[in-house]
Amino acid sequence: MNPTAAILIIGNEILSGRTQDKNLSHLACTLGAQGILLREARVVPDVEAEIIEALNALRARYTYVFTTGGIGPTHDDITTEAIAKAFGVKVIRHPQAERILRAHYTEDQINEARLKMADVPEGAALIDNPVSSAPGYSIGNVYVFAGVPRIMHAMLDAVKHTLVGGTPVSMLSITCDIGEGTLAADLTAIQNRFSQVEIGSYPYFKQGVLSTTLVMRSTDEAANQAAYNEVSAMIARLGGNLMEDPTKSA
Amino acid sequence: MNPTAAILIIGNEILSGRTQDKNLSHLACTLGAQGILLREARVVPDVEAEIIEALNALRARYTYVFTTGGIGPTHDDITTEAIAKAFGVKVIRHPQAERILRAHYTEDQINEARLKMADVPEGAALIDNPVSSAPGYSIGNVYVFAGVPRIMHAMLDAVKHTLVGGTPVSMLSITCDIGEGTLAADLTAIQNRFSQVEIGSYPYFKQGVLSTTLVMRSTDEAANQAAYNEVSAMIARLGGNLMEDPTKSA
Repeated sequence: MNPTAAILIIGNEILSGRTQDKNLSHLACTLGAQGILLREARVVPDVEAEIIEALNALRARYTYVFTTGGIGPTHDDITTEAIAKAFGVKVIRHPQAERILRAHYTEDQINEARLKMADVPEGAALIDNPVSSAPGYSIGNVYVFAGVPRIMHAMLDAVKHTLVGGTPVSMLSITCDIGEGTLAADLTAIQNRFSQVEIGSYPYFKQGVLSTTLVMRSTDEAANQAAYNEVSAMIARLGGNLMEDPTKSA
Repeated sequence: MNPTAAILIIGNEILSGRTQDKNLSHLACTLGAQGILLREARVVPDVEAEIIEALNALRARYTYVFTTGGIGPTHDDITTEAIAKAFGVKVIRHPQAERILRAHYTEDQINEARLKMADVPEGAALIDNPVSSAPGYSIGNVYVFAGVPRIMHAMLDAVKHTLVGGTPVSMLSITCDIGEGTLAADLTAIQNRFSQVEIGSYPYFKQGVLSTTLVMRSTDEAANQAAYNEVSAMIARLGGNLMEDPTKSA
């Protein structure tokens, strides 16, 4: 069994529609390459009780949980308090985090708001932030990242080699001009022969042109390739033409 | 109290990182304009038990739940079966939906896979799909939409006027070149004076330039404007320069 993961996105700005999340897909791809399967995502507002409830549900269920958002210096950054309460521990000022912040900011700049970014749940281990210095942290199976994508990516880079991975997920895809309804029966027959391969079918409309992308994913690379070959042959048999994957073009 | 909503995004393609969801932000903005507050989002895989569990949690908690994905003709489209089970009802072939599909497709094209798109949980009401004909539906407080953004948008347009709204959410924002840590204390003081306004602070790095966007949201438009005015005055007092909102530029 491959390890599993969930992402908990904390932030009113995502739920208001103002900001488009870009961390989920980056996390999914990075973990997938290491054989860790992202199995669930939740977005919750900056409300302590809701963060706690979601975190406790997810950390009991998945190998790893990654949170994004809410670890800055302002009043709406409440992630650390919520995570400490979820784990039943105190918030402490981490001496090493404080040293990092005092080295990064000038005497003029350092203040209580910025030092708040040195506060972590007791027992947490710091995660390096080469972008803007204020660290993330891990506690138990939970990894707490900033929401700003550049910082989130750097924090994930800093810890990804410490995660226990699994067999990498092989992903193959093919796009054609056959409607989903036309290929559905044949595709079901292929899926039934390859229980270890997850076959997805995704229709697109782009500039008035309909296409269907078929995606094969499996930790069994040989089975994935065999399923891909059968899907390829099915498209030829049904008289379909191959097309560019609409998600890959600009 | 404003009505609330959640979105349940059903689809392995989002969790694999292959596809970037674009429906959440569109739903949030459309609902927000009607005074319906999007309070939670979940992304689950194409696994029946997980769809049922998430749907039952969300529909008990929020005024409205919107699902996207999994209502096409292929084997991986299992949303309708899951929703019927969540409501404890049978799946039936909807006569009107069947008529719509038979009118849309030629004799050659119509087959059991396409007719599957006429299946709905018993008691569901159809939602018009002007893009590709196969309808969505609503049952109880749950609205079931396609995942393809163009179709999802059309289905939302078809039902949004039937939703009971609330006082529209007023949103104002201002961006400056002051770091979050520098303005945090003053911002907290403003937030404490305006309990009915939700003030968010969002840092951005763009081409090496740091900016902070402050966002005021409230159903009390006058209070929102007053909070905005105080935030504006705070930026001037701290010697900040106004900048273009980095989320608004290309």
